[in-house]
Amino acid sequence: MSAPAITDAKYVLGEKMDEGIPDIPSGPLDIYRKKASFSWKQMLQFLEGDEIIAFKQHVFRTLESDPLFARQPGEDIPVEQKRELAFRRCKQLFKYDFVTRDDVMQNPWKMTILNDCLGMYDWSLGAKYFLNKGVTTDSLLMLCLSEFVISSPDFEAAKFWVGNLGKTATHSVVFAQLYTPDGQCHGLHSFIVQVRDPKTLLAMPGVMVGDMGKKLGQNGLDNGFAIFHNVRIPRENLLNKTGDVTPDGRYVSPFKDPNKRFGASLGALSGGRVGITRMALVNLKLAVTVAVRFSATRRQFGPKEDEEIPVLEYQLQQWRLLPFLAAVYALEHFTRSFCMNFVEFQIGLLMKDKSDRQAELGREIHAMSCASKPLGSWTAQRGIQECREACGGHGYLAMNRLGELRDDNDPNCTYEGDNNVLLQQTSNYLLSWMQHKQQGLYTLETNLPTLNFHTLLYYSFQTLIQFLASSVHLFNVIISSDVVSSVPLAAYKWLVCFLLGESQRKLFHEKSSGLGDFEARNNSQVYYCRSLAIAYIEHTVLQRFHDLIQDEQTPAALRSVLGRLCALYGLWTLTNHMAILYQGGYFSGRQPVDFIHTAILTLCGQLKDDAVALVDVIAPPDFILNSPIGKADGESYSLSTFLAGHTFLSIRKTELY
Amino acid sequence: MSAPAITDAKYVLGEKMDEGIPDIPSGPLDIYRKKASFSWKQMLQFLEGDEIIAFKQHVFRTLESDPLFARQPGEDIPVEQKRELAFRRCKQLFKYDFVTRDDVMQNPWKMTILNDCLGMYDWSLGAKYFLNKGVTTDSLLMLCLSEFVISSPDFEAAKFWVGNLGKTATHSVVFAQLYTPDGQCHGLHSFIVQVRDPKTLLAMPGVMVGDMGKKLGQNGLDNGFAIFHNVRIPRENLLNKTGDVTPDGRYVSPFKDPNKRFGASLGALSGGRVGITRMALVNLKLAVTVAVRFSATRRQFGPKEDEEIPVLEYQLQQWRLLPFLAAVYALEHFTRSFCMNFVEFQIGLLMKDKSDRQAELGREIHAMSCASKPLGSWTAQRGIQECREACGGHGYLAMNRLGELRDDNDPNCTYEGDNNVLLQQTSNYLLSWMQHKQQGLYTLETNLPTLNFHTLLYYSFQTLIQFLASSVHLFNVIISSDVVSSVPLAAYKWLVCFLLGESQRKLFHEKSSGLGDFEARNNSQVYYCRSLAIAYIEHTVLQRFHDLIQDEQTPAALRSVLGRLCALYGLWTLTNHMAILYQGGYFSGRQPVDFIHTAILTLCGQLKDDAVALVDVIAPPDFILNSPIGKADGESYSLSTFLAGHTFLSIRKTELY
Repeated sequence: MSAPAITDAKYVLGEKMDEGIPDIPSGPLDIYRKKASFSWKQMLQFLEGDEIIAFKQHVFRTLESDPLFARQPGEDIPVEQKRELAFRRCKQLFKYDFVTRDDVMQNPWKMTILNDCLGMYDWSLGAKYFLNKGVTTDSLLMLCLSEFVISSPDFEAAKFWVGNLGKTATHSVVFAQLYTPDGQCHGLHSFIVQVRDPKTLLAMPGVMVGDMGKKLGQNGLDNGFAIFHNVRIPRENLLNKTGDVTPDGRYVSPFKDPNKRFGASLGALSGGRVGITRMALVNLKLAVTVAVRFSATRRQFGPKEDEEIPVLEYQLQQWRLLPFLAAVYALEHFTRSFCMNFVEFQIGLLMKDKSDRQAELGREIHAMSCASKPLGSWTAQRGIQECREACGGHGYLAMNRLGELRDDNDPNCTYEGDNNVLLQQTSNYLLSWMQHKQQGLYTLETNLPTLNFHTLLYYSFQTLIQFLASSVHLFNVIISSDVVSSVPLAAYKWLVCFLLGESQRKLFHEKSSGLGDFEARNNSQVYYCRSLAIAYIEHTVLQRFHDLIQDEQTPAALRSVLGRLCALYGLWTLTNHMAILYQGGYFSGRQPVDFIHTAILTLCGQLKDDAVALVDVIAPPDFILNSPIGKADGESYSLSTFLAGHTFLSIRKTELY
Repeated sequence: MSAPAITDAKYVLGEKMDEGIPDIPSGPLDIYRKKASFSWKQMLQFLEGDEIIAFKQHVFRTLESDPLFARQPGEDIPVEQKRELAFRRCKQLFKYDFVTRDDVMQNPWKMTILNDCLGMYDWSLGAKYFLNKGVTTDSLLMLCLSEFVISSPDFEAAKFWVGNLGKTATHSVVFAQLYTPDGQCHGLHSFIVQVRDPKTLLAMPGVMVGDMGKKLGQNGLDNGFAIFHNVRIPRENLLNKTGDVTPDGRYVSPFKDPNKRFGASLGALSGGRVGITRMALVNLKLAVTVAVRFSATRRQFGPKEDEEIPVLEYQLQQWRLLPFLAAVYALEHFTRSFCMNFVEFQIGLLMKDKSDRQAELGREIHAMSCASKPLGSWTAQRGIQECREACGGHGYLAMNRLGELRDDNDPNCTYEGDNNVLLQQTSNYLLSWMQHKQQGLYTLETNLPTLNFHTLLYYSFQTLIQFLASSVHLFNVIISSDVVSSVPLAAYKWLVCFLLGESQRKLFHEKSSGLGDFEARNNSQVYYCRSLAIAYIEHTVLQRFHDLIQDEQTPAALRSVLGRLCALYGLWTLTNHMAILYQGGYFSGRQPVDFIHTAILTLCGQLKDDAVALVDVIAPPDFILNSPIGKADGESYSLSTFLAGHTFLSIRKTELY
């Protein structure tokens, strides 16, 4: 309420800038749209570009105009019917064939955008479609195989959660240990195994295959489990890219170095986590859209008896929601740039790049994805919960979709590795990097670069002074977001260094006290390695967002609002580490906390008039968002909208009892 | 893994101590049960007593043996059918009449325990039952009334979310402004309004009544909305306890002081929040039971290739779950003692106690309930989410119930006042208390006592020294939980004082800069008043738990484990405030954080062998818990259990497509 009114906002639109971008429906939200300090169309153009904007519109419009995709907000549909709907819609998507093989080659980002679009509509459908499209990526993990007979040694070796396997899959790719007749084990190889008769869908002999049952969300997708008992498969079913067996039972492989084979697998696995980081972001976008639009139209109380103000005007509501909006923008840039890193790595694989740089890039991407998935999925999960609560009872109605988003995002915390367990991969990488560095073994810096130790090592001394000097200035005069975002960035650099040192010291201490490697690592996770991995990825996300704003290609008219978002994101995530900053001596006295708190609230106040426009940039059309309180025109709070949302319910008459 | 083995555990059971407590089914969990440092039956006896233990068993067994209450884990039931089931079961509960009027008079706690039991089975059913039982507590808020004609001035004055109103309610109690023919308004009064024809369930003329639709959870309960248009009701329908209108239109009231009338209403409203605090705790109990039992049986990896260890042995898993188990025990004692405070207050109301003490007690209970509901519901919501994630994919299966708990607990954050908004009531009370104190207006200390300023004011100086002295000792030698729990207690006393001072200063600053009262308060919530209210209630919960352990009636054999739970709870909640402790100068240097982190992890290690027994104390029977991975015998991870949990699914055959 004390935020400065922006009276001289100029919409410096470039030529053809908003061509093809449809206008937002007019309504109560216009009050805020008029106050925005920037043009949302220019922002959309800058973030996505013409081709992607047109592609998204094409996908969204196609779905909206196809009756098979029609739906009501908050429908109560049984699981089996959800699956049938997802199955039919999935078949339809194959007809539409939105992204061809050539499209992917020309612009790999389109595949991610298609997943975004389908996920915004329904994650079950997106998952079902991509699992079918990339059928050979389904995998089952088994432990024993001889003479091409597949068996699971016991129940705990059964493979669970295989997508599409619950009801419909007829063939599955199984990863199993390959034993040749001489008794030798050649490690994991993949095999095609027929699990069901394609006509009857009955399980094949020796195969126990079934459905996992109802999940908390994503129930359009059937997940299954499989147990094998002496299932014979023909020799040809071995997928022989990495190794083959001759008819007389000898093993042959083109790879000399088993470690490189494993490294390539690790790289492929990163793709899943890179994708999930993005999927979580999409969920956060939808939730924040709903909550910000609701908060800008919902009025409660006010300074005068007879005038109620939108709840977005309350500092508390801003503080609850706007940091998540900032996180959306930070993660939007991060996931995009990270996908490009991954594409670069994959091109290297295809080109059979055997350089040290390529190997190091693979390790770095693995480390980043093992932390970016936890960061993305947790930020989304917490953000969705905050949005749910911030919308009060309306957030608790199924038709407003926040519950579905919470349920659908939830597995992002679990699959492709439990978040807490994955973080250990990242800290392992960081600790081994530091160890090699200390031993002078590495001559290369990191590629991306997410670490830069020769710079970092100075931070513990330099930035303390810098921080105090800048904060005195900032606190007393005026807050410039450019300068403000450099404060958390410097703090993060120090933090990563400090936690690296602390983690190394802790591990050494545990080992010195007689523990084995396994126990020593386990006892160094909480407060050490785990915090290190989180600080590392938050620093990376912040650094990339900061660099984007400094980039000369970033339109001048957008820098101010992007700078505020960047500063808010950095300061907000930093608040989780303040005790460590004090502990390590980077902070002292009361000024740092005062500064950070004041800066966060000031930035929230500055951003609240931009919030609706910022949400217009990330929001899909109403049909896709499918949330009455998140409608683009902001007409959520009228009787007609409410009753329209309840057309499936009887108003005057009950049928029950 | 480094926790000391407890070899000399003695089960000092008092006479008749475990009479009537059925044994826990034997199974894999016995490994941990044998390691427990205390007798779970003795703990149950101590916490609940014979009468309540027998009562709970009676309720649980009655439900289990009634086919109407039979159910399968993770059933997929449409909303309308859920409502029908809840309706039928509710009728059955009236037949069982578990708690009579006399029972309540003899032991008011029984009503809470009945709600616990029904909620553990299904919150919709519990809510439906108690709403019907206390029918006159349903209320609708309207704005205009004249000559007993009820109208809602516009759509936004419609009342939403009324329990049972969606489908079935025939009469409703409406709170409306009472206008007499002379045009005078006499404030809110309650009226009985018929909303539906009892035979056809059609809405009465002028009444628009309908269903809110599907919610995220608690779908057995139908919530409705109502809008009135010139509905005429007879004069007799005014509930005339606080005021009446004569046939010739004159207003008469027994109350002289409108403020006292309002005060009585506030007191009544506290009951809802006291109850919700307890309901949230019940949800946390169920979730922690599921996650701890799962973690004690689920094995993954280990120090040796051929031996996997239960995931509960990992420090990270302990750190994720055991603080929530500690919170269960802290909140168990708090909710019980707080309910007793509330009963005392109600008795005062009944006895027409007009003393200052009674008035102050009402204000204090209001302030406590406005913070205990946020603390309880948020702790449960976060705890359930952590439990869900800690159980991995199994936690994501609907049949294991963690999703239902998350959905059912969620509205506890919203109804009876949004958590964030409610906290303002608490800080208002604290600030006004302090102001009166400073002006010398209060001669009374608080009754309960949740505040004790003349002691508190010294803490800022005394405890800093005390903390440093004790932490050096503790950190280097051995951790005694008695001493450890006094560390966070002292820190909390300082924290409440500090945040009181800071909040007062901030409010003064905002007003000095020209803001009105409304804006000044809004701008003092984040980082000030909100944190103050949270610290205040956490301190109260911790203080009461600490006192319980010191109480001479607490069995000596239980003090050790209770002391550890208390210390863990206090230190764990305190970690959220460490930056403030540094900011205010209570902490300095690296030692405090080192000490707190080390103490938390040490306590987790000490408690992990007690965790299963601690969960046995709070767990309902398997039939009520209704979660295969939370079964009391721990046989969750066998093929037979898994398949039994999937009996409703086809294993060899699919019906679809």
